[in-house]
Amino acid sequence: MNGAESLVRTLLKGGVEVCFANPGTSEMHFVGALDRVEGMRCVLGLFEGVCSGAADGYYRMTDRPASTLLHLGPGLANAAANLHNAKKAGSGIVNVVGEHALYHIQYDTPLTADIEGIARPFSHWVKTSPTAKTVAGDGALAIQAARVAPGQIATLILPADTAWGEAQGVADTPDTPPPPRPDEDAVIAAAKALRNGSSAMLYLGGRALRASGLELAGKIAAKTGCRIQGAGGTARIERGAGRVPMLRLHFVVETAQQQLEGTRHMVLVGAKAPAAFFAYPGKPSVLTPAGCETVTLCPVEGDPIASLEALAAELGALTEKPAGVAQPGRPERPTGKFTLDGLGCALGATMPEGAIVVDESITTGRGFFPYSAGAPPHDWLNNMGGSIGYGTPVAVGAAVACPNRKVIALIGDGSAMYTFQSLWTMAREGLDVCVLIFSNHSYKILYSQLADVGAANPGPRANDMLMLDRPGIDFVTMAKSLGVPGAEVRDLEQLTKQLDYAMAQRGPYLIDVVMA
Amino acid sequence: MNGAESLVRTLLKGGVEVCFANPGTSEMHFVGALDRVEGMRCVLGLFEGVCSGAADGYYRMTDRPASTLLHLGPGLANAAANLHNAKKAGSGIVNVVGEHALYHIQYDTPLTADIEGIARPFSHWVKTSPTAKTVAGDGALAIQAARVAPGQIATLILPADTAWGEAQGVADTPDTPPPPRPDEDAVIAAAKALRNGSSAMLYLGGRALRASGLELAGKIAAKTGCRIQGAGGTARIERGAGRVPMLRLHFVVETAQQQLEGTRHMVLVGAKAPAAFFAYPGKPSVLTPAGCETVTLCPVEGDPIASLEALAAELGALTEKPAGVAQPGRPERPTGKFTLDGLGCALGATMPEGAIVVDESITTGRGFFPYSAGAPPHDWLNNMGGSIGYGTPVAVGAAVACPNRKVIALIGDGSAMYTFQSLWTMAREGLDVCVLIFSNHSYKILYSQLADVGAANPGPRANDMLMLDRPGIDFVTMAKSLGVPGAEVRDLEQLTKQLDYAMAQRGPYLIDVVMA
Repeated sequence: MNGAESLVRTLLKGGVEVCFANPGTSEMHFVGALDRVEGMRCVLGLFEGVCSGAADGYYRMTDRPASTLLHLGPGLANAAANLHNAKKAGSGIVNVVGEHALYHIQYDTPLTADIEGIARPFSHWVKTSPTAKTVAGDGALAIQAARVAPGQIATLILPADTAWGEAQGVADTPDTPPPPRPDEDAVIAAAKALRNGSSAMLYLGGRALRASGLELAGKIAAKTGCRIQGAGGTARIERGAGRVPMLRLHFVVETAQQQLEGTRHMVLVGAKAPAAFFAYPGKPSVLTPAGCETVTLCPVEGDPIASLEALAAELGALTEKPAGVAQPGRPERPTGKFTLDGLGCALGATMPEGAIVVDESITTGRGFFPYSAGAPPHDWLNNMGGSIGYGTPVAVGAAVACPNRKVIALIGDGSAMYTFQSLWTMAREGLDVCVLIFSNHSYKILYSQLADVGAANPGPRANDMLMLDRPGIDFVTMAKSLGVPGAEVRDLEQLTKQLDYAMAQRGPYLIDVVMA
Repeated sequence: MNGAESLVRTLLKGGVEVCFANPGTSEMHFVGALDRVEGMRCVLGLFEGVCSGAADGYYRMTDRPASTLLHLGPGLANAAANLHNAKKAGSGIVNVVGEHALYHIQYDTPLTADIEGIARPFSHWVKTSPTAKTVAGDGALAIQAARVAPGQIATLILPADTAWGEAQGVADTPDTPPPPRPDEDAVIAAAKALRNGSSAMLYLGGRALRASGLELAGKIAAKTGCRIQGAGGTARIERGAGRVPMLRLHFVVETAQQQLEGTRHMVLVGAKAPAAFFAYPGKPSVLTPAGCETVTLCPVEGDPIASLEALAAELGALTEKPAGVAQPGRPERPTGKFTLDGLGCALGATMPEGAIVVDESITTGRGFFPYSAGAPPHDWLNNMGGSIGYGTPVAVGAAVACPNRKVIALIGDGSAMYTFQSLWTMAREGLDVCVLIFSNHSYKILYSQLADVGAANPGPRANDMLMLDRPGIDFVTMAKSLGVPGAEVRDLEQLTKQLDYAMAQRGPYLIDVVMA
């Protein structure tokens, strides 16, 4: 058994059953091993950002790491932006990156690069395996690292000679230490803070946003009268009818400040203290109201559910009925011209039970939440790292993870262009993804940002850097070229009709919502 | 004047007149300054790899750095693979990367990342400017660094508060120290080596491959009988009728060894000693024949033209007539089914004077050179870093640099999918680029690589990772969706007819050469 095969077998034994791959010469032994080993699902991406984003989406929906297979330094670099997003989302990924044979690196040939240096800013764990005999063991350590709560990026660099050399066998993955138990003093301090009622806030992130965490938060709110607020970035929210609803902290500083206004006691659960996405002249970075006292019940690396359980127990809230549970109910089917509310209603009216919404609708979708609060139970995934091009790749991974659920990707036209190669993988794998492109023919978010940073009233040249209308991009035609059918819609009736069609069929489908 | 404006003015004053940009919030002041400052051509790319590749192509054709404008760590990461290629090609680039305001970084918000860490593996020079007053001076240092021979990657990180704060004024760019003068001992040693006639070889890279360098090499060959060989990676070769022709070192180890066979004395000019692109089991990394003595006349960072001049003078070859000058002549127009030779003939028969060929035809184009040796004078640009997705972005930059010349991009279908966003920029800017896609519906190079690394006879799963035919990609339709017209061709008559049309018109055009 060569090193590559020992790694594939170690990954499988360690529960890593999917590999999102864009291989090259140095990864050919890994690819060759796939036919000798049963069980690894290898999904090809035509660009490495598709692979890393897909691994992120897969982790969010399974809580289990997938692997990626990347070609030397540049392949890793192409994956890096979505690794950044995955790292910020707390997603565990095992990157396998090919490298030249160790004896070959000294010749500084075209693909030679500092792969460890490239990996470090995007990884929690980095190692170059020195020999074929160490590859399996190092692979097991990478899996272990990827599983550290809430999930970590582990990058294993595999020199070609360690892939083709004779291995020692398959390695067992050591257990990952569990996240720290809830701190008793923090539980008592949090309980004390929340007894202040409506001037207190539970500020939730990470797995606190799963249905069980939100239910506990709802019980605590019922008992104490505290408010519940979601963080600005949320990797996965379980929401819909029967669940405790929650709003994310808004991107716009003033709106976020309004959401937090009046809070004197903030309890952080799986989230950092609220801060502005960007700095702006004359606006604060820290969004917590002045004088507000903050208690960290559970850090980002902790166990939010266990922490909420301990807190609910401390407060005697475990038997409470959760406050504010969403009742079933959908909006009316909207008609007429596109409005942001109308788009939200169209989605809320049509999304099926179990839908996985991957949201990268930067400008358009910010207000969609209320219209789907009573829709059948579903998941909602947001961008945690702010690097656009996350949406369609994460949709690929979510669809691979959950083949029996409909994935709905809400994508801005600017964002869509970063990683449009994902559509080919959707077509190839027959993934059940409905992609909505909101075509406003601009980087629309940047108009408000120009004003916010104090560079308002763009002249023609600045304006030119924000517009995508010259030429206009025909997303339906582009999707067709990659094997994905679709349709363009120009009003809300057309949209709901297309959504009905897309939800009823299986396989990838694109709807271009032409708003400008 | 704010820091961003002081930087734009400093760039212009330092001769940096083009910015390939994909800006976000933290770059809005730079964008805003464009309307207050005359002269900066700002070219928008929909993905950062387009911007960095375009800056590479621009430098190769002008020997002057362009700037890029990138959005924080992930924007830089998306640019990195083509920065890797540019770095290996010796292209000078000034990257301007936005960063959070310095006081904001501590809050670790979504886009916070170790930008210097991301930049370092891909840059020769990295600096975060600390205040608005230092931005201009640091920009000038970045230009100076980018100009170091043969060209360097300089990355200037611009925190938002340094962009919006009050600047001190515009900075003058200090002179860049010239490359070292030819070493006299090396000249004498090289002359001695070459006096051995046909057992000696001039091995050329970098600017030795410009027409004047090749002419000097031809004079030396005429005088001494030495052989002339190009390196495997060549950033830009000036070739065609009236010029001294040259073959690149082949990618396949055995073929490269044949090219070098019998060489007892090798003189390196602007090139490193020949090494295999990858390591393969049982094959050498070093390609220089055993017992061959190597003299470095001019290192990669030196001045190849001055070195060849000094060497020709030492040999008394300056007045020689260069050996082997290519006579004008084109191949017949080919007919019938596609063959690799036929494709080379079609190109050689139709390419206009002054064409700039950007070659990323990984499998298909390797044998094209002989068929265009006698075509009208033209430039030929190859990938130096081995990261695919370089071709169409470099074509963008070459076309911006040379608006009156036809750019011909030869792209494999696998490579095309990495940075296809380039086509939109070509349409937007009306760039005169003819893109040929060689659609063999696979990563065809990897079949030979599987055998070379000892993993031959791929099974169905390995095979699946190399095939792009499920679904097939319709490049003409994709181009159309991005505003670029084109046509599909299925035999050599159709191809030459389309090439004639494309060469006669102006603006971007795509020809999909459907080979499988």
